[in-house]
This record gives sequence, C-alpha cells and structure tokens, in this order.
Amino acid sequence: MAALRPSAALDRLSRRTSPKSLELKLKSSQSQTVFQLTYNYVRETALLESTLALLEWDEHTGLPYHAAPNRADQVTFLSGLVHQRKTSQELGGWLNELSHSELAQNPNSEVGASIRGLKRDFDKNVQLPQDLVKRIAHAVTVGQQIWSEAKPKNDFASFLPHLTEIVQLRREEAAILANGSPCKYDSLLDQYEEDALTANIMEVFSELREQLVPLVQGLTQSGSGPDGKSILGEFDIAKQKEFSHWVAAQVGFEFERGRLDETIHPFCTTLGPHDHRILTRYDAHSFSSGLYGTLHEAGHGMYEQGLSPEWFGLPAGCAASLGVHESQSRLWENMVGRSKAFWHWCLPHAQKWFPSLNHVSVDRIYADLNRVEASLVRIEADEATYNLHILLRFELERELIDGNLKCDDLPRAWADRYEAYLGVRPANDSEGVMQDVHWAAGLIGYFPTYTLGNIFAAQLMVAAERELGDISEMIGKGEFRPLLDWLRTNVHKHGRCYKPTELIASAAGEKLSSKPLLQYLENKLKPLYR
Amino acid sequence: MAALRPSAALDRLSRRTSPKSLELKLKSSQSQTVFQLTYNYVRETALLESTLALLEWDEHTGLPYHAAPNRADQVTFLSGLVHQRKTSQELGGWLNELSHSELAQNPNSEVGASIRGLKRDFDKNVQLPQDLVKRIAHAVTVGQQIWSEAKPKNDFASFLPHLTEIVQLRREEAAILANGSPCKYDSLLDQYEEDALTANIMEVFSELREQLVPLVQGLTQSGSGPDGKSILGEFDIAKQKEFSHWVAAQVGFEFERGRLDETIHPFCTTLGPHDHRILTRYDAHSFSSGLYGTLHEAGHGMYEQGLSPEWFGLPAGCAASLGVHESQSRLWENMVGRSKAFWHWCLPHAQKWFPSLNHVSVDRIYADLNRVEASLVRIEADEATYNLHILLRFELERELIDGNLKCDDLPRAWADRYEAYLGVRPANDSEGVMQDVHWAAGLIGYFPTYTLGNIFAAQLMVAAERELGDISEMIGKGEFRPLLDWLRTNVHKHGRCYKPTELIASAAGEKLSSKPLLQYLENKLKPLYR
Repeated sequence: MAALRPSAALDRLSRRTSPKSLELKLKSSQSQTVFQLTYNYVRETALLESTLALLEWDEHTGLPYHAAPNRADQVTFLSGLVHQRKTSQELGGWLNELSHSELAQNPNSEVGASIRGLKRDFDKNVQLPQDLVKRIAHAVTVGQQIWSEAKPKNDFASFLPHLTEIVQLRREEAAILANGSPCKYDSLLDQYEEDALTANIMEVFSELREQLVPLVQGLTQSGSGPDGKSILGEFDIAKQKEFSHWVAAQVGFEFERGRLDETIHPFCTTLGPHDHRILTRYDAHSFSSGLYGTLHEAGHGMYEQGLSPEWFGLPAGCAASLGVHESQSRLWENMVGRSKAFWHWCLPHAQKWFPSLNHVSVDRIYADLNRVEASLVRIEADEATYNLHILLRFELERELIDGNLKCDDLPRAWADRYEAYLGVRPANDSEGVMQDVHWAAGLIGYFPTYTLGNIFAAQLMVAAERELGDISEMIGKGEFRPLLDWLRTNVHKHGRCYKPTELIASAAGEKLSSKPLLQYLENKLKPLYR
Repeated sequence: MAALRPSAALDRLSRRTSPKSLELKLKSSQSQTVFQLTYNYVRETALLESTLALLEWDEHTGLPYHAAPNRADQVTFLSGLVHQRKTSQELGGWLNELSHSELAQNPNSEVGASIRGLKRDFDKNVQLPQDLVKRIAHAVTVGQQIWSEAKPKNDFASFLPHLTEIVQLRREEAAILANGSPCKYDSLLDQYEEDALTANIMEVFSELREQLVPLVQGLTQSGSGPDGKSILGEFDIAKQKEFSHWVAAQVGFEFERGRLDETIHPFCTTLGPHDHRILTRYDAHSFSSGLYGTLHEAGHGMYEQGLSPEWFGLPAGCAASLGVHESQSRLWENMVGRSKAFWHWCLPHAQKWFPSLNHVSVDRIYADLNRVEASLVRIEADEATYNLHILLRFELERELIDGNLKCDDLPRAWADRYEAYLGVRPANDSEGVMQDVHWAAGLIGYFPTYTLGNIFAAQLMVAAERELGDISEMIGKGEFRPLLDWLRTNVHKHGRCYKPTELIASAAGEKLSSKPLLQYLENKLKPLYR
C-alpha cells in the first residue's frame, strides 16, 4: 500500500494522526522511525475498521430492506482490506524489529504495550492456516443462517450437523493456537480475555456457583418478594427516548462525542476516537427495557470515551478485554442503575416524563426492578440468576472442546444443568440449547466474559468506595462524576497497557475473587425477600 | 490490488456481482475475459465509493460534534483508495484493449457504452498533472473555509485572493483538458454535462433570457397575484415528516430501497444499487420547505432507483448527467408537485395531517405555491425567476474563464446583472456574489446544469403527454405510475448509454429547446396574475 502514501490527502492525514507528545518522548533513532511508520500504518487501518463499524451501525439503524446484499458485499470487501493490512509482511517486519528494540522494554508503557499487543495480534492473525480461517468463516455464516431458521421451528436436528462442524473446526483452531498446551479451551478464551486461564476461572466460578445456587433457591422459594408490577403500564416511546437520552447524559455519556439510537438488539460501537454510538430498544409496556439497555450500553460507551484518543486504534488506546468491557456496562446498569440510591434521585425526574409513576414509591420500584426469578432465558435474567445461565454455558462449551461432551448429547446436558442450577427445565430446544446465537456464530470461549464482568464490577465498586467514601450518597444526589473519574483513572485510561487480570487486580487491590459479587448480591437481595 | 482477490470473501463477491445475462451475451473470447475483469474491478471500486457515500450521509444526519476531524480522515483515506483504483495501470491497460475490441462497436449498448464511459473517465482522471490536482484540492478546501467565514461578515476582500486563485487554477485545468480547442469553458462544462457545448447552451439560454426577463417583469409589476399567506402557520414537524414520507411513497419513491431523513441542506445520495437516500429540511412555520425538499430529492432518488442494478457503478448503470438528474428532480417538484391537479388530489390528504389547511381552497394554495417574486437569493427563487439567477451566473463564470472579467470586478458585474434581469440590486456581497458555495468549491461549469434540468423537464413533459394523454387528469387522481413508467422507459433505464443531449432528444422527440419551458411558465403563471 506504500504507493498510496505520497498524496497530499494522506500527508495531511499523517500530520493529523501523529501524536506530538510521542515525537518528543522518543529520541531520534531507527526504532523511533519504525515505530512512527507502524503507528501511521495502524492508524490508517483503524480508519478502515471504524468505517466498517459505521457500515454495521447503519445496518442496525434502518438499512432499507433490499440493501442488505450490497451491504454484505461492502463489509466483505473492507474486511478483506483490513485483513490484508493486519497480516502484511511490512507490518510483520516492523513489529519484529520493534519487539527486540529498547522501545519494547517497558511492557506497560503506551509504546511498549502497543508493540507487545500488536505483535501478539499479528502472530495470532498469521498463525492460523488461511484454509482453516476460510472454513470457519464459511461454517459460521451457514451456521447462523441455519440456526435462525431452526430456532423458531424448534428443530435442533437440522442445526446439529452445523454445530458439530463448528465445534470441530474451533477444536482444530484451538489445537494450533495452543502450541502443545494441554488445555485447548485456554486458547479460545484467550481470544476474548487475554491471558485468562481456564483453571483459574473454573476455581472462581465454582466458588460462585456453590453459594449462588442455594442463594437463588432460597430467594425464589421464599414465597415472598416483589411482584414486578409497578414498572408495567403504557410508556410513550418518544418520551422514553427523551428520558433515556437524559439519563445517559446525567451519568456521564458525552453526546458531543456520541449518539443514542434505537435498534433490535442493543449494542455499543466505536466509529472514531470521538464517535461512540450506543443503541437500545424500547418496549411500550415497560420503561425498564429502554432504560437499562441505555445504561448498559452507556457503560460500554463511557469506557470507550475514557480511552486515549491519541492512541486510538492501537493497544494503548483499546479496551483491555471483553470482561473488563462488560464490567463497565454491568456496573452502570446494575450496581448504579438498579440501586435504591439511584431511584431516590431518579424517580422524581422519571415522574415528569411518566406521570403513571406518580403513585409509585422508591421502595416499590427498587424492589420490582430487582425481582429474582429462575427463568429459562439468559437475556431476560435478573442479576443473581444471570450468572448461573453463564456458568452452565461455560461448563458445557468447555466439555465440548475437551471432547467430553458430544453435540448430540448437548440438549439433554443443557436441560439437566438448568434443572440442577435453576430448578427449571426447558420444554424444548428453542428455549433451551438454541436460545443464543453465540455457538452458531462460532463464539466459544466468549460466555465466561459476561460473568467475569460482573465479578470485576463488584470488585471495582468495593475499591472505589474505599477510596471515595459513600458512593450511594453521591448517587442519591445525582453525582456520578466521582465514580466515573475513579474508573477513568483506574481502568479506562490504561487501555490495553496491562493484561486484564493485572489491571483489575491493581485497580481493585486484590486478585480475581467472586466474594465481592456474592456479598453484593446477598446484601441487596436478602432484604427484598423476607 | 490483485493480491487481494483470492480470498473466499472476494470470490463470493465476484460471484454475486457478475451479471448472468452478461455471461450469456458475450461469446468466450479474450475481450470477454478482459471485460469481466474490468467489470469486477469497477464493481469493487463502487463498493468503496458507496461506502464513501455512507460516510457523507452520516456526516449530514447527526455526526457527533467532535467526530468531524476523524470523519474527514476516513473520507480522505477512502478517497485515496478510490483514486488509486480509478487511475491504475491495470485498469488503463484493460480499457485500452477493450476500446479497440469488437465489444466497443455499439457505443449505445450496455457493454459498449460502459467501455466508452470508463475510458473517457479514466483519460480525464490521468490527464491532469498530479501537482495541479493537489493545488486545486488545496485551494478549494481553503476557499470554502474562507468563504464560510467571509460570507456572514460580508467581507469579499478576504475571499477575493482565494477566488482569484481558484479561477486561475481551473483555467489552467481547462486549458489542459481542452487540448487546444478555443473555448476553455467547454472542458469545464463537460465535466458535469457530457459533450455539452458552450455555444449551444449560450444560444438556447439567450432565447430563454429574452423572453423570461419581460415575462417576469410583467408578472412582478402587475400589482396583482397571490400573497403566499395560505401556506404559512404552525406545522408540527413530526407530522410534516409523516406527510412527506407518505407523499414520497405515493409518487413512487420505493422505501424498501431507500430512506427519507432530515438534514440542513437537502440532498440525495446512493449507497448501493438498492439503497437510495433522500434528505429534506423542515420549517415549523411552513410545510412547503419540507414537502418540496422531499419531492425534489424524491425526483433524484426515483431516477437512481430506475437505473439498472446489474450495471451499478458502471456507465450503463449511472445517471446520464447532472442536467438530466436535475430534470427529474424539477419535474417532480414543480411540474407535478406545484400543479393544480396535484393539489386537487393532495389537499384533502394534507388536511388530515394539518387541520389548519381545512379552510384553504385548492385555487388558493395552488396560487400561493406559485407566487413569482424578483428576489436576490437563488435557493429561495420561484420557478420563473430561478432561471434568471442561473443565466447570469453562467454568463459571469464564462467571462471569468475566458479572461473577459476579473474577479476584482465580479461584485459590480453581479449587481449590475441582477438589476438588469431581475430589477433588484444586492445591498452587499453576502446576499450578492458570495451567496453560493459553488465557486469557493471550484464548481465552475456546474450552474448551467440547473437550467438545463428545467429545460429538459419541460421537453420531457410535452413528450410524455403526447404519448400518455392527459397527465393532469392522472395526477388529479393520484395516479403517478404512468408518468414514472414513461420516465423509466425513456430516460432512467438507459443510464449513460447515450450522451445527455442524445438521450433527451430521443425521449422528447426534438433537440434542445427552451420553448416548452417558456410555454409552460406562461401558461401557468399568466392566469395567476391578471
């Protein structure tokens, strides 16, 4: 692509994206020159990647019906350009040179971490045989298509051969990436959560499960607790949009650097160092879907807004991992947004938009928004049962990759595990093993990051409170800035300069532990269920 | 870029974008192989160009405030990729070979016209020295910036050196492209209106001016005529959006292949063969701005929707010229949308959205929407005076390029010409010579396409009526399909297979003539001014 560079437009681009501070910090040297070339090259790749993000954002906000095939072609073509740049010999050569240079010596500096992260990503990108990459891409495209047809028809049999192929291909991939290590699942997990080890996660998740299963049983079988009715009614969607926008701005999402839109499956995406877009969905019969979709995605968005714009597209300006990302969304959605203090502050405001809430008390709405119910569907689960949905998926997918469980036996294993952990058994595979798209999309090793996010969030809240004092009191007054600033300083601004476990351990002052999450759930839920 | 091709994703892409009919039509031959390579290559370029269109659409529909610099970088980078592909030796070699092959023999067939058009575009793209291209790009970037600051301050002096430089650079460009021909302006005009000749346009525009100046003077000095008040009031913007959407769908804009959105300066853009986006702006005090913005852009959009999806991105699937494009927008906006028949049909519907129109008659609203007023600002002009705004710009910019007028003397020449043609004189340069961005953006040779559009539209309406019978009667019943189908058959489906004047002459059954436009304006306006 070197032939592209000399144009005036690209000269302008390079000028714009070269960080001045960087030029000061590095002495004139061969390594500095190579780093500057690498930096510019990666920033250009990021321009393509953020353009891809726009293509996808637009696809989910109102792409005309017949435009989908051309959109797929645009995405495919740009993805090809990105892949070519990410695996180019030119980049590989620079990274080889840099990783042996003095610039790589401090692995936690912005420059050192970026070299380490880029080298790690490059090696992963070139390590897999092109043929396997293609076979996986094809299998998951077909897999998702078949899944979306089989799920409503409750037809696991037609999905089974595709799932079997996907699991087999990802086992092959894991074997190559594992480089002889005995735990194949580690190398899949590592793609979503850098350096996470299956053994560590098993230990922490086991502790969690041992206490969570009896806690949930105790609550759901108590016969008491909230009925969830105060949050139902008629809620004008135009008003919900205004309210969600206002709440997101109050907690700290910057609308001069972002947008909030409507979609079918809420998500957050980044289109540039100052362009963060969150999307939620609204339900005319309950305001909680729109509001908590917004708060969840605003948590993701505020993390992205706290990363360094100067290092955008490089590891020093990227999120640390999916687990850390999820910790930010769950913290704002649940630990802030479902707290009693939040509703002390928020209810009088919400009543201005929704007069039907005028006769609802803070205690009542707080209780209803925290109702615990053993259900079959993950995405509708409350804070306590949610983790059980994740834990059993983690166990099952690990067994699939290890070869201890066959895809044929998956529906039964799924149902047995639901019965054991949640006391409910799916009536069919549509609300059972086929409920999530993840496995059809090849996402194996992804699920545990959801519960890691909850664990991290609880650890971070304990540490923040130790330093800031009574956070509930602040939230009760609508003062969210101290908490956000603490997260900016202790999590966001570090990007990928530390490995996720190091980052959280440093911020939380303790290593990975499920205790804060369990403590939080017990303290919150037991009083609601006498 | 050949190294990119072998990926599975791109194989899939090529399969998808190869027209089956094409493979049948062409016998196996070397030329066929080269044509197929060219076709695939140009379609891939079109994927990048339509992605650029999305970046620009999104920029005008709510880009976060601080996201603008990164958006400019994305656009610059993708534009660089497009330019590289459009001037590549590979493409040049193929086009050379094809233009001497048997496939180029019929210049009006889809294949022949595509070869001819691509060769023409390629030659233009490589003919200009890279240095001149860069100097122009720089001058117009700075020029627009200075213009946008100078206009509100009414400061022509600070804009003058930049305008002088832009005119000088475009004269250099014209001299190179003219290849020794005496009329430099021809080669600028040709960039917007293929094969249009200054001499021809001068002749037709002179005829128009000679009759239009007295017509407008007669009307505006008559002391009678509509006062324009029935269309003013309070019009809820949410309701205007619904109404505009409904009207666009009624006239034939396909929403399964398009969208209607809100922006500051209305436009139409194409993001794919089935993705056409129109944008309008709304005024809470008058529904005409939103409605006529919609109808104008829907006219552009329906033209794009009538092009061949199979030839998307190639000349056979592109609009013939800016003038032909403008003929479609002005036809639907004015000749349909401002007709009395349209309001016979539309008023009862409009009253459902806007009860304040309940006491307005068809005659009254029709008259008010067609009020003629000699004004200083082009974009606010009525159908009759609009062309005078254009004619004087055409004259002035031609004199600038010929060297008969200096930029220093432009403000005075502008004011004199407004006085002569419209009887009004600007009080300052802000509402005078600096009102439009075109010259600051280097767009010299572009203005005449606006009036060509009006002339073409009037010629097309006469021909359509000759074939279809009483079009007013159809419009009065809300039957727009016969007119749209006639335009599809006689204009849209031919893409760029014919030169614009050939296309219009063939559809209209006569060569370029201002008579139908003058006749139309006289028939319509004289009865409104007794």
